Amino acid sequence: MLNLIKSLESAPDGTHLKLLDVLQAIPWNSDGLIPAIAQEHITNKVLMLAWMNKDSLLESLSNGQVCYWSRSRNQLWYKGSTSGNTQHLVSAYLDCDGDSLLLLVQQKGPPCHTGRPSCFYNHISNNGIHVRNDPI
Amino acid sequence: MLNLIKSLESAPDGTHLKLLDVLQAIPWNSDGLIPAIAQEHITNKVLMLAWMNKDSLLESLSNGQVCYWSRSRNQLWYKGSTSGNTQHLVSAYLDCDGDSLLLLVQQKGPPCHTGRPSCFYNHISNNGIHVRNDPI
Repeated sequence: MLNLIKSLESAPDGTHLKLLDVLQAIPWNSDGLIPAIAQEHITNKVLMLAWMNKDSLLESLSNGQVCYWSRSRNQLWYKGSTSGNTQHLVSAYLDCDGDSLLLLVQQKGPPCHTGRPSCFYNHISNNGIHVRNDPI
Repeated sequence: MLNLIKSLESAPDGTHLKLLDVLQAIPWNSDGLIPAIAQEHITNKVLMLAWMNKDSLLESLSNGQVCYWSRSRNQLWYKGSTSGNTQHLVSAYLDCDGDSLLLLVQQKGPPCHTGRPSCFYNHISNNGIHVRNDPI
């Protein structure tokens, strides 16, 4: 079913596919997951990368609150359900191969459990890692 | 070795780890890969998500030209080597769990093989997919 999404490569602006067909066509990995990038919709800051299964994607699209799949707890992860640092879904995009998602979100509070403004605070280069930003 | 990266959660700005220690500590997936997000360093546009193994990460950090691992061709993928649409690496970040990368890049030409300005052109909602942008 991947060909359904690949068929969009040459499709003009506005071409439409039904959600049920898309969900069947996504090449979920062997654990039934797809990586999802969360990006702040105004600043364009990349906040985090997490994983979604079919249920969490449907939940996010339906509720407008981002829900991931927690690979460590093996359960739906309603982002911010304990911390209050929720993500409101503004819009979502599937890439050309259909195997990754970009979520534009409105982030309440810090996205990272360390309190930093992004999970990507470890600057990596040939010299190794230098931590950017203090934890809060 | 994951604890080495997790130990940075509470580390202050400027804390340093050696690259060889970091490479050992990254929880590469069962295929030896980690997802890497490419973001344009000036516009902050998210361009694509691809995968890196240890060699492609080292190659990218050393050369300053982004090199991924092609899962379909099962080989190093020097981005733009055939199309000319290379990515110059401006800076790279590892996330709090050490299991995803954010690459800030200078993109030459379109990043997507469809010619679109981002691989994330399939807007997905409860109504399914609507393609944004014509292919070029």
